[in-house]
Amino acid sequence: MRRTYDNEMGVSSLVPIEPLHVRVRAWQELTGKRIDVFAGDLCDADFTHDMLRKWRPDAIVHFAEQRSAPYSMIDQKHAVYTQVNNVVGNLNLLYAIADIDPTIHLVKLGTMGEYGTPNIDIEEGWLEVEHNGRKDRMLYPKKPGSFYHLSKVHDSHNLEFGCRIWGMRVTDLNQGVVYGQQTDQTVQDARLATRFDYDAVFGTVLNRFCIQAVLGEPLTVYGSGGQTRGFLDIRDTVECIRLAVENPADAGEFRVFNQMTESYSVSQLAELVAECFPGPVQVEHLDNPRVEQAEHYYNVKHTGLVGLGLQPHLLSETLIESMFDIVSANKDRVDPAALLPTVRWKGHLKER
Amino acid sequence: MRRTYDNEMGVSSLVPIEPLHVRVRAWQELTGKRIDVFAGDLCDADFTHDMLRKWRPDAIVHFAEQRSAPYSMIDQKHAVYTQVNNVVGNLNLLYAIADIDPTIHLVKLGTMGEYGTPNIDIEEGWLEVEHNGRKDRMLYPKKPGSFYHLSKVHDSHNLEFGCRIWGMRVTDLNQGVVYGQQTDQTVQDARLATRFDYDAVFGTVLNRFCIQAVLGEPLTVYGSGGQTRGFLDIRDTVECIRLAVENPADAGEFRVFNQMTESYSVSQLAELVAECFPGPVQVEHLDNPRVEQAEHYYNVKHTGLVGLGLQPHLLSETLIESMFDIVSANKDRVDPAALLPTVRWKGHLKER
Repeated sequence: MRRTYDNEMGVSSLVPIEPLHVRVRAWQELTGKRIDVFAGDLCDADFTHDMLRKWRPDAIVHFAEQRSAPYSMIDQKHAVYTQVNNVVGNLNLLYAIADIDPTIHLVKLGTMGEYGTPNIDIEEGWLEVEHNGRKDRMLYPKKPGSFYHLSKVHDSHNLEFGCRIWGMRVTDLNQGVVYGQQTDQTVQDARLATRFDYDAVFGTVLNRFCIQAVLGEPLTVYGSGGQTRGFLDIRDTVECIRLAVENPADAGEFRVFNQMTESYSVSQLAELVAECFPGPVQVEHLDNPRVEQAEHYYNVKHTGLVGLGLQPHLLSETLIESMFDIVSANKDRVDPAALLPTVRWKGHLKER
Repeated sequence: MRRTYDNEMGVSSLVPIEPLHVRVRAWQELTGKRIDVFAGDLCDADFTHDMLRKWRPDAIVHFAEQRSAPYSMIDQKHAVYTQVNNVVGNLNLLYAIADIDPTIHLVKLGTMGEYGTPNIDIEEGWLEVEHNGRKDRMLYPKKPGSFYHLSKVHDSHNLEFGCRIWGMRVTDLNQGVVYGQQTDQTVQDARLATRFDYDAVFGTVLNRFCIQAVLGEPLTVYGSGGQTRGFLDIRDTVECIRLAVENPADAGEFRVFNQMTESYSVSQLAELVAECFPGPVQVEHLDNPRVEQAEHYYNVKHTGLVGLGLQPHLLSETLIESMFDIVSANKDRVDPAALLPTVRWKGHLKER
């Protein structure tokens, strides 16, 4: 499906990537370790159920969702597709686990975007609320910024219910914006390379800035650039999943980790790239295609994964320089048109 | 669709009801007022869009959702159906309004079940949160008790986003459990009668107790009966909608009203019916088929609609006695088997 979206949008990963079966074979050649593949759609309940019955894992890492906010905001069809694909796939998985073995630990990819930018500290999924002299521990209130982010909010609510009524064990990883392209595993063989998305629909901001710097194009900041988000290194993403799987949630527990290591504003990221790049870099401010707060409070608690042993790779010049190298090596594959935003949150209202 | 669910479950309204076109014709005969009918599925985006373009209303009252918690909990298929039907229909309506005219006021039927039974006061949709010395006004945290109730939580989040990014005006009516069957309008002609559901899937608890009393069957209380919920008279339901429509939400406002007038525990309702019924009444406690708190705090704010002029009909002997009359008149239509719960929240786990 991920490659189908690329074909629809007319974009592709900067770094060429091999088909799944080639990557699985390469991994076995290199390590001697076998990965079983069940190719199918989680929205197909029979497939999901049969796969789980044959496979019977201890844990499931669920990354199989449409994960682009701009993609979900293209129009009604893409909004509905995103919510149905994500919510139904997750519901089917939840039912299959409940049916077959509720002790299976589900590690689900959420997003920091579920919270939006509230004016209070962002806690890890739950909030101790005191109101009119009484207290409760409640799901942290959500204010997501796209129909995609909303689909993850819906997933979280469905999962919390599954834990409550069926005693399931779920870890929701509310992930920040990922940067970088290499892990200790992928560097072992070019066939193991993972995606490097830079286009305005699926790409992330730091990847895009690195490409723009290498191409000698201005870094495109949406609006004032005061929008602050949580970020993490792709190596930490993988480590967080390992830590979550090896330290499962309790039976009946809906556990949430904020999977990010540092906060930056978009402007700060642009400045950092400009400082690191060995050459002149310009910054250009575009009209923000999204509807979001330009300036806001942002303070995120993210101690859960550190408590399990995460040692973050913080954003340093070294990392950014390694990204410049990756971009330079694939420079001729860049489509400059793909860097510019095409999806506008208020696109509908402009038609009138 | 409502009648399709009846056919699937093998149940029907205690009071016979006419097809929609007959009721619309009867209303025109009685009042001279015409109601236009567009028969279609909100999940069909083209239908929804075309209807709205032709109709161009000032306000839309959206009641077109699958509304039974037990129905949504039958199995995976019914859970997925309920969430897709409700969420997609609502999304399509939201997009059609944003496309055609975002000043159209959407009055959406929510449910008090979105909140669950928190240990703090239930406010009207929003909560002023103070945390670590900072404040924000946030969506009230949700803890719904079924995949149906979850679908309404998803709807609320999608709608709040539509208000935020497109400046839509939405009123979410978080309705309590409705009782009664007659309004000033429906009593004018038997053809205008509305449903009286008493079965364990679509019926509501007070309707069921009244039938059990008339039949001389014990009133079936699930569990201890300490579960407390908000209730309202069917006449107040209609009045609340009128008040919401005549006093629209502001542009960009996601307004929530708690549409209920009184709180009762299930045991209190059983006692009330027993007191009012002119004959002996027994109460029987069944294993609770649902997963819910038996004893809990429950204090709901519901001043919004009163502020607009609602004068509640409180639950009185008069109302209950009129329900006994309706039941007696249709006694031979009751299917006693339909009164007993068949859907269990932990049904899946029992199979093992």
